[in-house]
Amino acid sequence: MAHITIIGKGSMGDAIGGVFAAGGSDVNYVTRGDAGATISGDIVVLAVPYPEVDGILAAFGDQLAGKTVVDITNPLDFSTFDSLVVPADGSAAAEIQAKLPASHVLKAFNTTFAATLANRQLGGVPTTALVAGDDTDAKAALIAAITAGGVSALDAGALNRARELEAIGLLQLTLAVGEKIGWDTGFAVIR
Amino acid sequence: MAHITIIGKGSMGDAIGGVFAAGGSDVNYVTRGDAGATISGDIVVLAVPYPEVDGILAAFGDQLAGKTVVDITNPLDFSTFDSLVVPADGSAAAEIQAKLPASHVLKAFNTTFAATLANRQLGGVPTTALVAGDDTDAKAALIAAITAGGVSALDAGALNRARELEAIGLLQLTLAVGEKIGWDTGFAVIR
Repeated sequence: MAHITIIGKGSMGDAIGGVFAAGGSDVNYVTRGDAGATISGDIVVLAVPYPEVDGILAAFGDQLAGKTVVDITNPLDFSTFDSLVVPADGSAAAEIQAKLPASHVLKAFNTTFAATLANRQLGGVPTTALVAGDDTDAKAALIAAITAGGVSALDAGALNRARELEAIGLLQLTLAVGEKIGWDTGFAVIR
Repeated sequence: MAHITIIGKGSMGDAIGGVFAAGGSDVNYVTRGDAGATISGDIVVLAVPYPEVDGILAAFGDQLAGKTVVDITNPLDFSTFDSLVVPADGSAAAEIQAKLPASHVLKAFNTTFAATLANRQLGGVPTTALVAGDDTDAKAALIAAITAGGVSALDAGALNRARELEAIGLLQLTLAVGEKIGWDTGFAVIR
């Protein structure tokens, strides 16, 4: 059983926590307003929009050393909805790893809308969470907790693959905003 | 009926030509060895590996003015299989458009393996060709020719979205090489 703290309680935090809880993980939530809260999970999901990450790290970063930290963000330029605000040769996940050198940062859940996590499927195809990261054990533990909750999970490679996952996130968001796909559909992985 | 010339006769050229022919388009093939060949199609598919594109443009570029040129490449660094050789903030498609300013360049087919085009489905889900480009009419004509051939096609946005399509192509190739997905599976689009 994994002990998981989810920071943030928006639709993504709810959906992710629901998957983990269904899989038997112990899940608790912390929000930015919980000043002084103890982060008890061994896996900590940053389920907040990208612009809030720095504030979360300022509030709780010293508690994240030694833990697995899951970045789910899509760092969009919301003024244009046409690009990311992170460097073209980097990623939000790489930035977070640089700020948390004692944590194992994983990228996950940025290519799955909340509804496809809650539904476990899109168009009848199982939802797949793509997980990238450099620490093999941390990645395996996250994948196990996700799959226990009824969502397929796939090791997408090292943390530098977060760049491609964030590209998929950007494209998928532009397609949803443009009503080419639904907020309960999008990219699926067929194996 | 679209008139389509496919430059290159590898597995991708074969599969793409098969789709177009099934849809009633007039399809002919040219290879790099066909020195002096006339490019008769209104839509020209560069169905060659990225490293061969410059040679193709040198041989046939002056015939491509006014035509729709379809870039299907995944410009991988094959020495590492870990990144692309185009600038991080650019794409192969953008490079080709810059070299062919009088052509309408579209990005397509780089996220679909040859088998998923030939099969029209992956895991029972319809294959979707993602098409990006700046010229609305050229994009609509390509999408019509693809869908006539039994493959779904989706307008993925302007040509700058080629960057994200090439990121998907890179990730999908790394997953296939790593045997996480098959060469007849991969990413599907659920609408």
